[in-house]
Amino acid sequence: MLAFVGLGLYDERSITVEGREVLAEADRVFAEFYTSKLVGTTVADLEDYHGIEIELRDRAGVEQRPGPVLDAAGSGTVAFLTAGDPMVSTTHVDLRLRAHGRGIDTRVVHGTSAATAAAGLTGLQNYRFGKATTLPFPDVHGGVPDSVLDTLSDNADRGLHTLVYLDIRADEDEYMTAATAAGLLADARGDGLGVAVARAGSPGPVVAADRCSALADREFGDPLHLLVIPGDLHHLEAEALRELAGAPTDLVDVD
Amino acid sequence: MLAFVGLGLYDERSITVEGREVLAEADRVFAEFYTSKLVGTTVADLEDYHGIEIELRDRAGVEQRPGPVLDAAGSGTVAFLTAGDPMVSTTHVDLRLRAHGRGIDTRVVHGTSAATAAAGLTGLQNYRFGKATTLPFPDVHGGVPDSVLDTLSDNADRGLHTLVYLDIRADEDEYMTAATAAGLLADARGDGLGVAVARAGSPGPVVAADRCSALADREFGDPLHLLVIPGDLHHLEAEALRELAGAPTDLVDVD
Repeated sequence: MLAFVGLGLYDERSITVEGREVLAEADRVFAEFYTSKLVGTTVADLEDYHGIEIELRDRAGVEQRPGPVLDAAGSGTVAFLTAGDPMVSTTHVDLRLRAHGRGIDTRVVHGTSAATAAAGLTGLQNYRFGKATTLPFPDVHGGVPDSVLDTLSDNADRGLHTLVYLDIRADEDEYMTAATAAGLLADARGDGLGVAVARAGSPGPVVAADRCSALADREFGDPLHLLVIPGDLHHLEAEALRELAGAPTDLVDVD
Repeated sequence: MLAFVGLGLYDERSITVEGREVLAEADRVFAEFYTSKLVGTTVADLEDYHGIEIELRDRAGVEQRPGPVLDAAGSGTVAFLTAGDPMVSTTHVDLRLRAHGRGIDTRVVHGTSAATAAAGLTGLQNYRFGKATTLPFPDVHGGVPDSVLDTLSDNADRGLHTLVYLDIRADEDEYMTAATAAGLLADARGDGLGVAVARAGSPGPVVAADRCSALADREFGDPLHLLVIPGDLHHLEAEALRELAGAPTDLVDVD
């Protein structure tokens, strides 16, 4: 049995109670943190807190050499841990399909996710978000890729909000900040309202709404950050951005 | 202090460990189940499992008469429980803004959510979903509302998947099934690929991909159900729908 278990958003207590029980019953526990990372804890703290031993896998250890994980799941109960909700990355779908191909039962134990947390923390309504996008580090594409700009304009044309995931290089402990992202987008598509979200799921999340050019000059502290580019605002959304995120009144004026 | 705590997707163990701790420390615990509901547990089981007493609020008790909840939060620590991730409904944003207006600290303890679980269970990639929509019971609008059809075609034009939430009348214990939804959509917009998801977050979720007309003739068991209408498929998504959801090969053929 191979159980994909989401660790949730922030630290060792972000996992669900069910997930914790699955960990306690697992014969072996693998984890990967190259697609995303928990910034509020360490592997050692996760091990201590849950009383488990975690076998870390890098990208190659999942994508090119999944054999040991699958062998273990073929002969016992294996938990495969990832930050957030599992199966968000194609690499995990691929692993699940390989297990399925070997006749190994799989299950998914869900975790809290940035996708819904960003909506909840900003007061922007979940069903008013369009397609999400990921902003890569500028050295990857030499700027903001057209695909990101296309997603933003497609959503804007429909009045929809856009959740912008920010690139991480977990191996190098490098995380794009919301300030950097806001600056890049202000340059590439013109200034406008943005909402920075820092440390979603932590006890001290920061949510700040302002012009992207203004967000670019601010500091939001430790990772992970997200950026939301709002579309049309419902009056309650506007009020939330003003009251909970400090948006300048003229930026969120709705009839 | 008013803490909005997400109960997650299914039963009393779907809450995060952090959420459980917040419950244990709360002076009073309120809950509402009119926007969504946990189908794998009862209020009594939640109370027993977490060792708490839950004060239920109906819609009027939150939207028109929030006074008692706010008074309690002004003088102690209050947990306000909802299914899934909190703040997904405008009614909770409104309550948070009212607390904020009274100078009461608020926090959000996230929960697992259908929005990401549907992606994870189907193998469809989260970032390839467009705007979500909710299909109301036919007697509300006399059929499928234009707004739902517009969302589906907007997403389809862009090759994006659509998550279709299905109407619930929690008070009357009435839940639209994925079969009903698939039949309504097949009639209103023509037949095509759909993916039914039943009991996301439970130990026995069902995921089934087929023509909407075929899904309409099937039974997926207990609520809650969701329906996903896929857009263009990546080859790994097609494989997941075939292998994990039993999609007919000709329906998910990609180059």
